[in-house]
Amino acid sequence: MTENSLGKNDSLDTAIKAAQSGGEILRRYFENGVTIRNKADGGGKSYDLVSDADLESEKAVADTIRDAFPDHELLGEEDLQNGDPNAKHLWVIDPLDGTNNFAHHLPHFAVSVAYYESGVPIAGAVYNPIREDWFTAVRGEGAFHNGTRVKVSEAATLNQSMIGCGFYYDRGKMMRATLAAVAECFENDIHGIRRFGTASLDLCQVGNGSFDAFFEYKLSPWDFAAGVLFIQEAGGRVTTATGEDLPLQSTTILASNGKIHDAMLDITSRHALNQ
Amino acid sequence: MTENSLGKNDSLDTAIKAAQSGGEILRRYFENGVTIRNKADGGGKSYDLVSDADLESEKAVADTIRDAFPDHELLGEEDLQNGDPNAKHLWVIDPLDGTNNFAHHLPHFAVSVAYYESGVPIAGAVYNPIREDWFTAVRGEGAFHNGTRVKVSEAATLNQSMIGCGFYYDRGKMMRATLAAVAECFENDIHGIRRFGTASLDLCQVGNGSFDAFFEYKLSPWDFAAGVLFIQEAGGRVTTATGEDLPLQSTTILASNGKIHDAMLDITSRHALNQ
Repeated sequence: MTENSLGKNDSLDTAIKAAQSGGEILRRYFENGVTIRNKADGGGKSYDLVSDADLESEKAVADTIRDAFPDHELLGEEDLQNGDPNAKHLWVIDPLDGTNNFAHHLPHFAVSVAYYESGVPIAGAVYNPIREDWFTAVRGEGAFHNGTRVKVSEAATLNQSMIGCGFYYDRGKMMRATLAAVAECFENDIHGIRRFGTASLDLCQVGNGSFDAFFEYKLSPWDFAAGVLFIQEAGGRVTTATGEDLPLQSTTILASNGKIHDAMLDITSRHALNQ
Repeated sequence: MTENSLGKNDSLDTAIKAAQSGGEILRRYFENGVTIRNKADGGGKSYDLVSDADLESEKAVADTIRDAFPDHELLGEEDLQNGDPNAKHLWVIDPLDGTNNFAHHLPHFAVSVAYYESGVPIAGAVYNPIREDWFTAVRGEGAFHNGTRVKVSEAATLNQSMIGCGFYYDRGKMMRATLAAVAECFENDIHGIRRFGTASLDLCQVGNGSFDAFFEYKLSPWDFAAGVLFIQEAGGRVTTATGEDLPLQSTTILASNGKIHDAMLDITSRHALNQ
């Protein structure tokens, strides 16, 4: 921490407060019914959904952060896509991760809020407002699930492992690459594949040891900004699906407990597309 | 109901009491830690798990039913596999559906208890003891999620649909057939695929409208006995993956809201193996 940097707990406090403000909006919509439309107003794909809840949650999250830190930069999924990933003080926001679950009334979605300083993750909160599940982390201070410190699993081989995966909004080569990697995971006698549909929570489930790894061939920074810190603080490892350091931009991703990272990398890198 | 048949609500009451007795045991193991081993004591596959919790839960469920109905037949996953599916009075029990989730500390598993009379489902209860989620149904009286009546979704086409799927303990042709059907679902612009790992809950999520369909290429009767009644009472449809009436034995399965059943059948039947 430099002299000018933000206090770590100040940033976690604000991340939590912001996630809670968004989560309350999501909970209200979830209980009262949701009107869903396709992105890009009719020009979008039928499977890329957005709701008033996304937009209202983003505004609540952004307002909470701006109240606390008026001069910080914001990067988010809806109206904040122009934020600079390398800003000195950057907040990365997913106001509703798991829109599809939300739309289908599956209570598995989250608000994700992370604070980065010059590209380095400092604090993060992922919040499922229906389950009242909180995943929080501060750089150097560990990862916590509902206030209890957690760590990644001990699985050392694929045949002891539960693997999470995600599918980007793609119905062509990337979808088939994902399925090919899934098939190869199965052929290595993994315990099972899970597709829960909310990347931020999937990453936290690597951090708390339920998943031994998670991969997806395209994620946006708001999907993983908080989850990556959570995993690192829980003792795990995160790279691109081909083994490079993860950039704070749209990227492939492989997250694991560390122990099975190379075995998973062998699979995910072989099926990765040239992007 | 014939003169000699059991009162419907007596059977639901017993199903609930039995599921609760099993669920309490699962909750205790889940909170205190689980010792997992492979089925068939070392001769089994590394991904086919069993725990003391399965066995203890089955005993509690069976004892509860036997106390109420000493002369009824029982059919279940662990020590009750010899029950006669065509018995006049039959209870079909899965004492821990979702063993893999349970072992990996994912709070998504269930106890499933169903009562059948001469092959006809009369009452069923599916219970997730961690989420305190109850799915109950009585023949002719509707399907209820935590006491609230539910029905299947209104989705009329695949491009409005969320599809659940399951993978049997197979790492060869059946796994690849499942992935081929998943790919074809994606090519029809479904909203998404979900793999949550607990068939009884997946089926209930068709009944309550969260999934528009669910398919798997091999399920055992204890996996679906209660869920099938739940879906039928919620207005949905269940067949084999090739469109036949579902037998009360190991089978392929396609469950849906009814409206997309034929569209899904076109996919699941084409990829089904000759079994």
